[in-house]
Amino acid sequence: MNQQICDLKYFLSPRSIAIIGASENFASISGKPLHFLIEHDYKGKVFPVNPKYDTLGGLKCYKSVLDIPEPVDLALLAVNFKQVLPALKQCVEKKIKFATIFASGFAESGEEGRIMQQQIAELAKESGMRICGPNCQGSVGLKDKAIGGFSASLGVKPLKVGPIGYITQSGALGYSIFSLAQEAGVGFSYVASTGNEVDLHTLDFMEYILEDPGTKMIISYLEGIKDGKQYARLADRALELGKPIVTLKAGRSEVGQKAASSHTASLTGSDAVCDAFFRQKGIIRSHDIEDMIDVAALMQKIPALPEGKGIGLITTSGGGGILMADEASDLKLDIPELDPESRKIIMEVIPPYGSALNPVDVTAQVINKAEDFMKVLQVIVAIPQIHALVIVITQITGEQGKQMAEDIVKISKLTHKPVTVAWTTGDLLVRDQLKILSEGGIQFYKSPVRAVRAMGALMKYSIFRKEILSRTKADPEKGLAGNIRESAISFLTNKQHNLTEHEGKELLALYGIPVTKEEIASSEEQVVSIAETIGYPVALKINSPDILHKTEAGGLKLNIKDKTELVSAFNEVLKNARNYNPKAQINGVLVQEMLSGGTEVIVGVNNNPQFGPVVMFGLGGIFVEILKDVSMRVAPLSFEDALEMIKEIKGFKVLAGARGRAKADIQAIAGILVKVSRMALDLETHIAELDINPLLVMPEGNGVRVADALVLKI
Amino acid sequence: MNQQICDLKYFLSPRSIAIIGASENFASISGKPLHFLIEHDYKGKVFPVNPKYDTLGGLKCYKSVLDIPEPVDLALLAVNFKQVLPALKQCVEKKIKFATIFASGFAESGEEGRIMQQQIAELAKESGMRICGPNCQGSVGLKDKAIGGFSASLGVKPLKVGPIGYITQSGALGYSIFSLAQEAGVGFSYVASTGNEVDLHTLDFMEYILEDPGTKMIISYLEGIKDGKQYARLADRALELGKPIVTLKAGRSEVGQKAASSHTASLTGSDAVCDAFFRQKGIIRSHDIEDMIDVAALMQKIPALPEGKGIGLITTSGGGGILMADEASDLKLDIPELDPESRKIIMEVIPPYGSALNPVDVTAQVINKAEDFMKVLQVIVAIPQIHALVIVITQITGEQGKQMAEDIVKISKLTHKPVTVAWTTGDLLVRDQLKILSEGGIQFYKSPVRAVRAMGALMKYSIFRKEILSRTKADPEKGLAGNIRESAISFLTNKQHNLTEHEGKELLALYGIPVTKEEIASSEEQVVSIAETIGYPVALKINSPDILHKTEAGGLKLNIKDKTELVSAFNEVLKNARNYNPKAQINGVLVQEMLSGGTEVIVGVNNNPQFGPVVMFGLGGIFVEILKDVSMRVAPLSFEDALEMIKEIKGFKVLAGARGRAKADIQAIAGILVKVSRMALDLETHIAELDINPLLVMPEGNGVRVADALVLKI
Repeated sequence: MNQQICDLKYFLSPRSIAIIGASENFASISGKPLHFLIEHDYKGKVFPVNPKYDTLGGLKCYKSVLDIPEPVDLALLAVNFKQVLPALKQCVEKKIKFATIFASGFAESGEEGRIMQQQIAELAKESGMRICGPNCQGSVGLKDKAIGGFSASLGVKPLKVGPIGYITQSGALGYSIFSLAQEAGVGFSYVASTGNEVDLHTLDFMEYILEDPGTKMIISYLEGIKDGKQYARLADRALELGKPIVTLKAGRSEVGQKAASSHTASLTGSDAVCDAFFRQKGIIRSHDIEDMIDVAALMQKIPALPEGKGIGLITTSGGGGILMADEASDLKLDIPELDPESRKIIMEVIPPYGSALNPVDVTAQVINKAEDFMKVLQVIVAIPQIHALVIVITQITGEQGKQMAEDIVKISKLTHKPVTVAWTTGDLLVRDQLKILSEGGIQFYKSPVRAVRAMGALMKYSIFRKEILSRTKADPEKGLAGNIRESAISFLTNKQHNLTEHEGKELLALYGIPVTKEEIASSEEQVVSIAETIGYPVALKINSPDILHKTEAGGLKLNIKDKTELVSAFNEVLKNARNYNPKAQINGVLVQEMLSGGTEVIVGVNNNPQFGPVVMFGLGGIFVEILKDVSMRVAPLSFEDALEMIKEIKGFKVLAGARGRAKADIQAIAGILVKVSRMALDLETHIAELDINPLLVMPEGNGVRVADALVLKI
Repeated sequence: MNQQICDLKYFLSPRSIAIIGASENFASISGKPLHFLIEHDYKGKVFPVNPKYDTLGGLKCYKSVLDIPEPVDLALLAVNFKQVLPALKQCVEKKIKFATIFASGFAESGEEGRIMQQQIAELAKESGMRICGPNCQGSVGLKDKAIGGFSASLGVKPLKVGPIGYITQSGALGYSIFSLAQEAGVGFSYVASTGNEVDLHTLDFMEYILEDPGTKMIISYLEGIKDGKQYARLADRALELGKPIVTLKAGRSEVGQKAASSHTASLTGSDAVCDAFFRQKGIIRSHDIEDMIDVAALMQKIPALPEGKGIGLITTSGGGGILMADEASDLKLDIPELDPESRKIIMEVIPPYGSALNPVDVTAQVINKAEDFMKVLQVIVAIPQIHALVIVITQITGEQGKQMAEDIVKISKLTHKPVTVAWTTGDLLVRDQLKILSEGGIQFYKSPVRAVRAMGALMKYSIFRKEILSRTKADPEKGLAGNIRESAISFLTNKQHNLTEHEGKELLALYGIPVTKEEIASSEEQVVSIAETIGYPVALKINSPDILHKTEAGGLKLNIKDKTELVSAFNEVLKNARNYNPKAQINGVLVQEMLSGGTEVIVGVNNNPQFGPVVMFGLGGIFVEILKDVSMRVAPLSFEDALEMIKEIKGFKVLAGARGRAKADIQAIAGILVKVSRMALDLETHIAELDINPLLVMPEGNGVRVADALVLKI
């Protein structure tokens, strides 16, 4: 896999653009790019290409790209899908660096299109020309007005330039989000629509734009994730840089996933894994267009990320405070009560029916004396436990409203703490007031809930980021691996597809994962001697690669207390197994220590097509089977990741010592999760699935033991 | 309690209004009502009252209400809080029916205000004059332009009249919601702000407005619920009428509740109970201002409620369909796949990369032939499994967009199925298109998620309503009660505060609730004879009102298999109990049958200050203790309510026979829940709490048995 960032400089900021199939009909897809480039006064060179015209929009029009006398950075293919391949070949001949294909009719349209798309992919690979699309709506470099798209939303003047990068897999929905965002005041650095992603894909753009100094945040609309590892890599980088990634990942539901696969040619993947991945990497997941725009609009305006999750809530009406407090609590933000001194100062300027707790209810009376509101703002912004302010103004209009808006702008200049406003009044009544906020660089909303949600997303991102940056980074290359990996692979090579329980444990033991004491016995003498070495009570389990369900086969005897019981159990287990499956290859009987006490947990690994090995953790029994109470992380895991994963499940209290139980050895579980994640990465191309069920967790300080394990090879 | 609906006709549609303290400053609180009444051309009579003026706004101004020569329906008190009481007394003397008090400074402001508010309450009671407020922003009858408020939002012309009734406890936030709703196109029948609710309260207004033929839906902003039983009564009536109630109930979180009690003088109550109550009564709960406005805007425009929860999703871009499908799945709506014939017709008019499943992706190509989109709409709207349509249009602009808008308007006239649109494009690009929708009576949104959420709320309401109306109504007055109630009360009268386990069971048995076979023994002879009658094994439990924790006291012996064991256990239990609490009154030992098998569940009753008895159900053990997995209903319960309550818990699968268990006797549990709810209502003024823990549930057909019970008297 290419770990280098794909250099998209001259795709997003081309010095020259050729439009192949350019048309004089400026309302058509083939006419719009030229129209927009002229309208927005693009400073690079534009070369329309169409044998039908001599000039277009006042520019010389070429019969073919090969006739263009100068070098071309980007070619926009505005031709019918049947003409795409020949046109691309000319672009290659012309040594054009990048090409965008607008046409649809490829992989999304059936077999013929799929084959053509395949040919395009091969052309890209052979030639080195990087291709975006087909079935996309192109890209825009907003600062340069390098408009490589045809969406009607690009015809609005002026386009708002700003610090938000935006990548979308969907063209039509994608640019309609762009349009809504622009009207909401969001300015963009770069926009790219990737369509069928024959070559360049979403993550390539994300990875490149992330490094742009003018970009503070990346927002994205995704249906599928092509390469989970690339996403992980760039997400790590984004955390380093402190540039939040916001993803509206559609296809959460089964029906949605079905719609996604009929819509684009990408895999949607299990949404639970995606969700776990997003949490693990601090990616802000939006569930609606407006959520995503809300966060981007706020990020654009604030001077810095909030430094913690202590939120200060100020309102002119009690109700607004309650709505904010409810949302902040749902988001698990802190709502610190104000200290007595701050409260005292506030109480002096607000009426007795206000509140100087947090939310601070200044009441509508605060407008009576011009300086009072500012006093409150100053007190609150100075409190160290408060890292951001959300202010609800209900229906203060006129001059008094203007004064409040000015005060808010003023306080925001005096602090690095982000400030935002929800002014819950129709535009007609507060147009001038909102203008003051807007010009003063304050993002505002109509809904207190949306204001808190946007601020909360950035607060949670920020503390997550600090936490992650403080952790030792999980490194798949280092640590336990090394020649263990080689031993493990050579161990696996000669085994059948399903490892027996005993083989599975041998493999785990290679990685230092503690398993039950056990040995295989083939005779009555052996079984007795092994049992005596291990110590009674013991368990017997049939050892056969062909019998997976030991209980069903009568191949399992537990809690055997002495020799007599043991010998008879040994013979019975063998007999039962032979009756159950006469063709089964039976390799003796496993004699195993009987563990008592302890809590059963499950540790699993699944090799996900997008993300690679995903580690799963849950409590045994009803927690997994009925409540589906599991946590997941994409490998590798750090020790802290593992601890977090354990604490995340709903049943965690059981391990923490609820109902009079002893506290379980949580540190030991975390250690196992780290080792399992390393093993899973080491053996990624060899192991399809691993199930440790159960892992027995002893009381604190007494470790864990793998009681049963199932390993499926690829 | 007064079960009669409070007649608010001349409060909301007064024939004459007196404004006490009216001012010539039309920008002030005391000037605005007169200003608005004149501006909006109110047809009733207006009497300004203020000794300072002879005329105001061209009207004769009176020194006192007593000088007004005609009858007055409604008095607006725009005076300082100190002048309120004298002014009210004059209103009483003038025989004015209703008064609204704007001033703050009462219960929300401390002791002095609390006393004044108490005096107002008494005045209302004695005089029969109904009072709204204090600390409120008044009411509006929109059709009559009877403006009894001072909010700036009432100055906008024209005020939109429509079928939505609106009641708010918060004045400032409340009227700012009104303002946002009006700008979103929502028209109102009546609006009332209730403030401190000294006399008239939210539910009085809800109950009255519900009966207004011009009102189709009631929306409300609530912080506290004064009378849960009144709310239940009016919610039942609303279901009968098919008028949805939407409630934005703030104060979900602890901080929010704290803010609520510092804001108004009402109890917020446990939010979990509220939430259960809303679900039980089909009340649509919004969590944000915008959610509430979205639903109201849709309800206002659709011809009828959707008849089921089958949603048809149509989109011009795959992404829009996926976003809708995700949200519809979250809401548990049905997204029926289209039948082959419908699919065939659709496939003929859409390109091969579209989709004729549901969501139907018509792609942007559908605009190429004017009649194609209409064909698709006709096919989908005709499918019986589809009860409503949500259409996403991404970025179709210009003439083609207008055509689509017209088609949507056209189809909506041909069907009673509700249709709504999410047009995900900035206003600048589709202003004309949206105007066509708006004038055609189609509600539209920007966000596909919000469109589906609003429609989904109405679909779920509608099927819930059908289900509820089909059920036998739970009737607290009928059924098991009668002389059982009297026996139960007389049984309780002589008991101590905490009933012993045995007493609790005797009480339950009165209501036909099956309990364990058991009897009290005071001697060795008795214990032996009782055990023989019951049959071994038995359990022994110390019987003392002073020992609640029997295990801790060593007062519990289980699984006693024979006479020898029994006698020694009997003596040991007695000895342990005396050692544990030498002062305890010990009334022998309870001999009880040992039940085996079965699943432990918990049934509880809590007497809620707002709603009366609330019945709680959950699985025993970790489900309740760790996962808080319980369901709740306000009594009384019908059998179907009880079944629903059982199925609602996450662990329901355990009862339904997961993990190889026998299916539990769910019908029997439901029967017990109904009986318990009846008993709880019968004994509402006698019992504070009831805990049946555990109720042992046997396999299907084998009933249930109360194994332990705790009853706390009031």
